[in-house]
Amino acid sequence: MNYSSAFIPTLREVPADAVIASHRLMFRSGLLRKLANGLFAYLPLGLRSFRKVEQIVREEMNATGALEIKPSVVVPGELWKESGRWDSMGESLLRLKNRLNNDFVVSPTAEEAFTAIVRDELSSYRQLPLALYQINTKFRDEIRPRYGVMRGREFTMKDAYSWHTDDKSLDGTYQAMGRAYRRIFKRCGLSVIPVRADSGAMGGSGSEEFMVESEVGDNTLLLCKSCEYAANVEKASCTPDFQVRPSIETARAAAANTPACKKIETPNVKTINDLCAFLKTEPKAFIKTLVYRAVNVELDLSSAPGCSKLERKKISADAPSVYSEAFFAVAIRGDLDVNEVKLAAVLKASEVSLAPDTDVVRLTGAPVGFAGPVGLSFLPIIIDHTVTGMEDAVTGALEKDLHYEHAAYGRDFEAWMIEDVRTVKAGDRCPLCGGELYTKMGNELGHIFKLGYKYTRSMNVTYLDENGKTQMPVMGCYGIGVDRTLASVIEEHHDEAGIIWPASVAPYHVIIIPIKYNNEVKTAADNLAAELTKAGIEVLLDDRNERPGVKFNDADLTGIPWRVVIGDKGLAQPNPQVEIKRRSEKENLMIDTDKAAALLAQKIREELAALNS
Amino acid sequence: MNYSSAFIPTLREVPADAVIASHRLMFRSGLLRKLANGLFAYLPLGLRSFRKVEQIVREEMNATGALEIKPSVVVPGELWKESGRWDSMGESLLRLKNRLNNDFVVSPTAEEAFTAIVRDELSSYRQLPLALYQINTKFRDEIRPRYGVMRGREFTMKDAYSWHTDDKSLDGTYQAMGRAYRRIFKRCGLSVIPVRADSGAMGGSGSEEFMVESEVGDNTLLLCKSCEYAANVEKASCTPDFQVRPSIETARAAAANTPACKKIETPNVKTINDLCAFLKTEPKAFIKTLVYRAVNVELDLSSAPGCSKLERKKISADAPSVYSEAFFAVAIRGDLDVNEVKLAAVLKASEVSLAPDTDVVRLTGAPVGFAGPVGLSFLPIIIDHTVTGMEDAVTGALEKDLHYEHAAYGRDFEAWMIEDVRTVKAGDRCPLCGGELYTKMGNELGHIFKLGYKYTRSMNVTYLDENGKTQMPVMGCYGIGVDRTLASVIEEHHDEAGIIWPASVAPYHVIIIPIKYNNEVKTAADNLAAELTKAGIEVLLDDRNERPGVKFNDADLTGIPWRVVIGDKGLAQPNPQVEIKRRSEKENLMIDTDKAAALLAQKIREELAALNS
Repeated sequence: MNYSSAFIPTLREVPADAVIASHRLMFRSGLLRKLANGLFAYLPLGLRSFRKVEQIVREEMNATGALEIKPSVVVPGELWKESGRWDSMGESLLRLKNRLNNDFVVSPTAEEAFTAIVRDELSSYRQLPLALYQINTKFRDEIRPRYGVMRGREFTMKDAYSWHTDDKSLDGTYQAMGRAYRRIFKRCGLSVIPVRADSGAMGGSGSEEFMVESEVGDNTLLLCKSCEYAANVEKASCTPDFQVRPSIETARAAAANTPACKKIETPNVKTINDLCAFLKTEPKAFIKTLVYRAVNVELDLSSAPGCSKLERKKISADAPSVYSEAFFAVAIRGDLDVNEVKLAAVLKASEVSLAPDTDVVRLTGAPVGFAGPVGLSFLPIIIDHTVTGMEDAVTGALEKDLHYEHAAYGRDFEAWMIEDVRTVKAGDRCPLCGGELYTKMGNELGHIFKLGYKYTRSMNVTYLDENGKTQMPVMGCYGIGVDRTLASVIEEHHDEAGIIWPASVAPYHVIIIPIKYNNEVKTAADNLAAELTKAGIEVLLDDRNERPGVKFNDADLTGIPWRVVIGDKGLAQPNPQVEIKRRSEKENLMIDTDKAAALLAQKIREELAALNS
Repeated sequence: MNYSSAFIPTLREVPADAVIASHRLMFRSGLLRKLANGLFAYLPLGLRSFRKVEQIVREEMNATGALEIKPSVVVPGELWKESGRWDSMGESLLRLKNRLNNDFVVSPTAEEAFTAIVRDELSSYRQLPLALYQINTKFRDEIRPRYGVMRGREFTMKDAYSWHTDDKSLDGTYQAMGRAYRRIFKRCGLSVIPVRADSGAMGGSGSEEFMVESEVGDNTLLLCKSCEYAANVEKASCTPDFQVRPSIETARAAAANTPACKKIETPNVKTINDLCAFLKTEPKAFIKTLVYRAVNVELDLSSAPGCSKLERKKISADAPSVYSEAFFAVAIRGDLDVNEVKLAAVLKASEVSLAPDTDVVRLTGAPVGFAGPVGLSFLPIIIDHTVTGMEDAVTGALEKDLHYEHAAYGRDFEAWMIEDVRTVKAGDRCPLCGGELYTKMGNELGHIFKLGYKYTRSMNVTYLDENGKTQMPVMGCYGIGVDRTLASVIEEHHDEAGIIWPASVAPYHVIIIPIKYNNEVKTAADNLAAELTKAGIEVLLDDRNERPGVKFNDADLTGIPWRVVIGDKGLAQPNPQVEIKRRSEKENLMIDTDKAAALLAQKIREELAALNS
């Protein structure tokens, strides 16, 4: 391809709203343009790389035995009503009506559409397991799209779904997908961090997220300096740095020598820091108690303190019944934070947030800042594991300006539940090896998880087993963001001059720059391009009538892995020579013109082989 | 690929709403399923063929030098407001609002998006010509989707757009696209009829439609039995079957011997047939005069009779001003019909329809049925060419129960315009060679046309020419429906048993049917599949534990071009043999097992070469 015919509008300026490297470079190197906030157009160079990522994903999906299908992008709202997500998805779901006033959705994911297709065709266990996927347009009505295609409104996702007769079969496909994902990212030249993640609103358990490090990542990851442990902060745990009391009896025994729990006056003390200053101690010595409001709680609260009047309600025909609202006290060591995602998982609640002050006052009988587990009888108390190890703590006394000292778990108060709800942070110890944990910000490129029966139950999917009995298949679900993957390659492979493409996703393998595209130089450039093309190497020939500096800058910016410079001087040597330079390296090399094609083809095949191995 | 792993849910029953062969067969052979009215999902087998059509389109587009890009499917409504189509497109345009209340469109075509992209990058004439295309999801909110993917709501279209400095350059690309389209359809095994078409609401002139014959086609085509002439009825012309008078003087001279025009009483005569019976003559002897109402007329009416009070108005800033409403009398020979599309084109009107009776009475001063050109002074009279040859005709006298006889054009009445507005019909003579015309119903698969300045003007696209002067590029536009093309292949290539795929778009080239998939038969089937796969032939191996009859039926239904049957009997021959049969032929052939792969590969390569030649 000649550069002048390739429509590569490179830019010197950086778009004002581009704060991350991939966003800046996709615009500057002419890969992408914006149509509106969060809506983009891939230009020819960008689309070439995009298609290569797509093809890598497709090959690895096919290798797992998954079959590609292509449902429509706009799907009937009825299907989303069946699954319950029409109501539960919130405003990021782009809902629309057509001229006949029918409801539709511009798909953000396709559990419903795929399940509807399979439901109609599935009759026998012999058809299972079945894994289907698509690589298709998706839409999420982001309120604040940013970072280019890293968080756009419209994007392309590979989403796969699988159906199984049992958990073992599901696990087999789940593991195969995990291996395929590792291969996909490796082939794209990406370093990903596979992390155990909370599966959040998607339902089900058993999930793995594939993250890349990113300064603007949505996720805080906890990684171990000594082992492979990696977890999303929403699910991370750590080795306790305290004595965990495995039972209430051991906790009571530990408190044997603790002085009796008694109230102390703490006038004008409102925060833990105030209290530390006032009592001359440190946050670790306190039991912090927070009141949370939870919405749509599935957990059984029939025996929970203060909950006897709550009633379970059905919010949709097929979903389990829930308590629409419930309040909980959560006690945790004073130096730690409660992780609301972990808490929500414990409560099986759709949402958890700090209770409004008025509720806190109503439920604890005290102003905000004086809650504590001792004597608290109107709320279920959830204590974090850390509290089980506290046999002599300070905590709120449920009265203004009063705290307890010498409070001990097991002796002075008990828990309704003991759970791990702490937010793990850098410096905590790895739960696997005890090594030191550190944090990274990460962006999710892919996510695989075991969905369970959420959709097959709500959409009533069944098959007949070997005994002719009606059964419900169990599902898995596996997504990769194609645009995000592409942008992440640029995040990982660039320098101040531009992109440095891995050969597997480079729009072209070689850029040939004739110093002046005429006479012998033109002939040599054309011949080399033809020879490389014949060898299956993708060549961009910079035929423009521009200064060499402009061409060199564009070559660096667009990041083509190999650059060949052809000029009069080199060709005038006894053995005519051209200059070869790898984008990722500083050195260049003069090589005999007639050996250039073979060397380049060999180098590129080596890199591709290494990436694809 | 093993059949049992390929998810090919064939059906015995025909879907109730499937009235055409492709719709029936795409469902029955497991290519497609319905998600909602007009919304479909391609299943694995269907997607394989779909991708092949897509790839053929892509290769031929690339061969013209057009560059593929990928804009979003959901595009900002602002762009459609700029072009004016937000208002002019009608309800088939799927408009929607996001959570921020911004307007969006699910693209039905992409003139706006492409023009917006080019507008931002275009500065110099050196960047032109430029041709860009996409193969992407489109949406048209059909009020009555039907015929499967032939008229769905969501579909995939290849749409290309080009920008040029002048008409010559535009014509070069237009011709290249026409050649590419012919190649695309040939490679797909399709017989298309390229027809000159009215470019309708798309604006601009110079257009060619690529039609396939279809019992449920939207278009009536006129074709010549003797030459290559083909035209949409909306634009078809024919060789006159009468004397055309080139000037009013020759018309007057021809009327020299015609008796004087005079009124005759025609009581209770309301139709041409009544009149024929009453006067004992035939429709050809009459001048039929119809009053039309036209909307948004761009033609200059400043000197037209009865139009002096009409005022031109701007309906949008960038569009030319128009008369919002005007009335016309159209006179045509009594045995012919006026073609409203041709009439609208003559008037440059957005819409033309018969005037309501009240307007007819008001404007002609007579009841409906007595309009005629003689003495009609309050309306512009447009006469069809046929009328210039009538020197002794009967026509309405603008009074109840009265007609004129011996009316002659030139002597008794004159025309404001003389135009070809007749509807050409089967039996008329070809305008090129005089051969007999016949009609076919056709479906449009592709359309290429010269758009002119419609979008570059309304969206203000400019570049600097060689002299540094600001110029506006002229545009062309080129579309192909991918789904329609695929469905049309099935329409053209099927029999009562199923599809008969051309090798170029077949989901697989060969289906291997082991009579029973075990022992030596299994080994032979596996070996043949491996050998063919190694030779680049795509193989489906029917490994199911089904009766041979079921497998044969599914092979015929899914239309795989070559079938190999492997059974104990053939393998037990002194030279072990398998049976080979081409789907399109009745005969089968026993061949030595070790020669089967080579023969099949050769046959398939020959067919592919012939299609791609």
